[in-house]
Amino acid sequence: MLKQKIGIFGATGIVGREILKVLFDKKFPIESLSLYASEKSTGKKIKTPLGEIIIQDANRANYSKLNIAFFAIGGEWPKKNSKKAISAGCIVIDNSSTFRYDKNVPLIIPEINPNEIKNSLLIANPNCTTAIAAIPLWQIYKNFGLKKIIISTYQAASGAGAQGMKELKIETKKFLKGEKTANKIFQHPLAFNLIPHIDAFQKNGYTKEEMKVVWETKKIFNDENIKISCSCVRVPIVRAHSENILVETKKEIGVLKIKNIFKNTDGIEVRDDIENCVYPMPITASRKYDIEVGRIRNSLIFGKNGLEFFVCGDQILKGAALNAVQIAELVVNKE
Amino acid sequence: MLKQKIGIFGATGIVGREILKVLFDKKFPIESLSLYASEKSTGKKIKTPLGEIIIQDANRANYSKLNIAFFAIGGEWPKKNSKKAISAGCIVIDNSSTFRYDKNVPLIIPEINPNEIKNSLLIANPNCTTAIAAIPLWQIYKNFGLKKIIISTYQAASGAGAQGMKELKIETKKFLKGEKTANKIFQHPLAFNLIPHIDAFQKNGYTKEEMKVVWETKKIFNDENIKISCSCVRVPIVRAHSENILVETKKEIGVLKIKNIFKNTDGIEVRDDIENCVYPMPITASRKYDIEVGRIRNSLIFGKNGLEFFVCGDQILKGAALNAVQIAELVVNKE
Repeated sequence: MLKQKIGIFGATGIVGREILKVLFDKKFPIESLSLYASEKSTGKKIKTPLGEIIIQDANRANYSKLNIAFFAIGGEWPKKNSKKAISAGCIVIDNSSTFRYDKNVPLIIPEINPNEIKNSLLIANPNCTTAIAAIPLWQIYKNFGLKKIIISTYQAASGAGAQGMKELKIETKKFLKGEKTANKIFQHPLAFNLIPHIDAFQKNGYTKEEMKVVWETKKIFNDENIKISCSCVRVPIVRAHSENILVETKKEIGVLKIKNIFKNTDGIEVRDDIENCVYPMPITASRKYDIEVGRIRNSLIFGKNGLEFFVCGDQILKGAALNAVQIAELVVNKE
Repeated sequence: MLKQKIGIFGATGIVGREILKVLFDKKFPIESLSLYASEKSTGKKIKTPLGEIIIQDANRANYSKLNIAFFAIGGEWPKKNSKKAISAGCIVIDNSSTFRYDKNVPLIIPEINPNEIKNSLLIANPNCTTAIAAIPLWQIYKNFGLKKIIISTYQAASGAGAQGMKELKIETKKFLKGEKTANKIFQHPLAFNLIPHIDAFQKNGYTKEEMKVVWETKKIFNDENIKISCSCVRVPIVRAHSENILVETKKEIGVLKIKNIFKNTDGIEVRDDIENCVYPMPITASRKYDIEVGRIRNSLIFGKNGLEFFVCGDQILKGAALNAVQIAELVVNKE
């Protein structure tokens, strides 16, 4: 693989920092590494295996010095800056939702639709909840067909960034001391509470976070006919997302058969030994690349044409940084 | 209403203590109040609005001195002792799962099937998760019919009793100090974790807790034809259970119409003002008699013949003590 000139934008944020770690952990071929963040972080240093690197102003990046830019900055930023990058011939892997629903931009999960990248210089990274569910769902889709997907989520504080994780811990300490809890990052105090509200409400009563799973799964699977619903709930967990998933399949789906398929799927760790209390959980799934899948059983609603199961995955890894680096690996391998 | 000679069995446990509170809070007509627990608590005193009451040995109770016995003791105890109570003419309201699936024992939620009590001296109190979901589901069932009910739960530590709540708080403190967490009451550490396993696994891959919701809802609604599935997850919350519920109805169900029905239903508080971030949450539902219902919307899966919503209810109140006292009120009003 050719060595690459890499830029990480949003390098001080939680996703940016994890992209840095994953690049070295996966021995990504790096020729040069540049780190960018907002103006206020400019000049600060970040330790890396290549030595300390000085953070540069993301708004003043010279994209002609880069091959691959990881964008981990939200808001209006990606729209403005992707154009500069692309016109300099730099490939952008964007972690925001900005381009995910643009039919000209490929939305990629490397285990599912790697060939959709084609020659695009701009590639979108999916939402965390989508990425975690899609890995096992794709195996069901390919082997048994999918009519309906019904998801209820249990989402960690990390989805709201490092500030969200910090707020959860600080407010939990206050709660345990009997002090009044507060909230800045979340809509309500999250300590020993849960909040059925992530991202903005849409006209249909679902939130944008919920609709992201619907829109993105259909786009990644390239199938508009699957009926999908998702209900997203923030829970007082630090960094792994869990999801209860119920599906109706086109063909009969055997529990043993799908378990064997999952066991042989890259990116999945089957944790399903109920007699020994082994099933997916945030404490085991955190900081792990694989998605944990367990509690696999035929459905009481859809019978042999249905499956119910539980998944758990690191929101910052497969839900963000890992998938982004996997996309970069695909790009490099094509060259 | 005639004043009653009341006995609370399991008076030192969390449900027993709440039954005591609810009886006085609801001004239940009490002639005498006797408190019973295991031998090791015998002789201890509990403060009540009637003064301090000495705890007696539950195994040596004289049921002829009682009209109504609240049983809040698990295991084999209710089976042995209900016979003694009934043969002495004492009415038993049992909080365990022992008699719930016995077709000769009425399983009662007063808002739904009060007339099923008939002349039974033994009445079963439903599982907490069932009771909380059933209140809004019954309104949907009566007005629009129900084909399918799909539930995912977010269950509090209180479901494992006072020891469960204590373990959650102690282990959370340890986690925040960076110490290793442990577990005795739960199958795994619950601090900043969740556990998709409540009660014993059954042959079909569902847990007994999950099947309780299926069996009990069908019995209480007196309808074996509804398809029901439930997935139960323990979350690090102190005392209120939450449930995400998706239903397929027989008739078209309008969101405004069902909201109005819920608003006029005893036992429900509609919290559904998404623009102002008002929806059910454990911190608002705890210590409240009403079940909170919100996020009411038509379903992306079942369209206008489907509804998705979120409920939250105090596991110890409507999920146990409150429902038991409401059953006792029905009994007294019949006399």
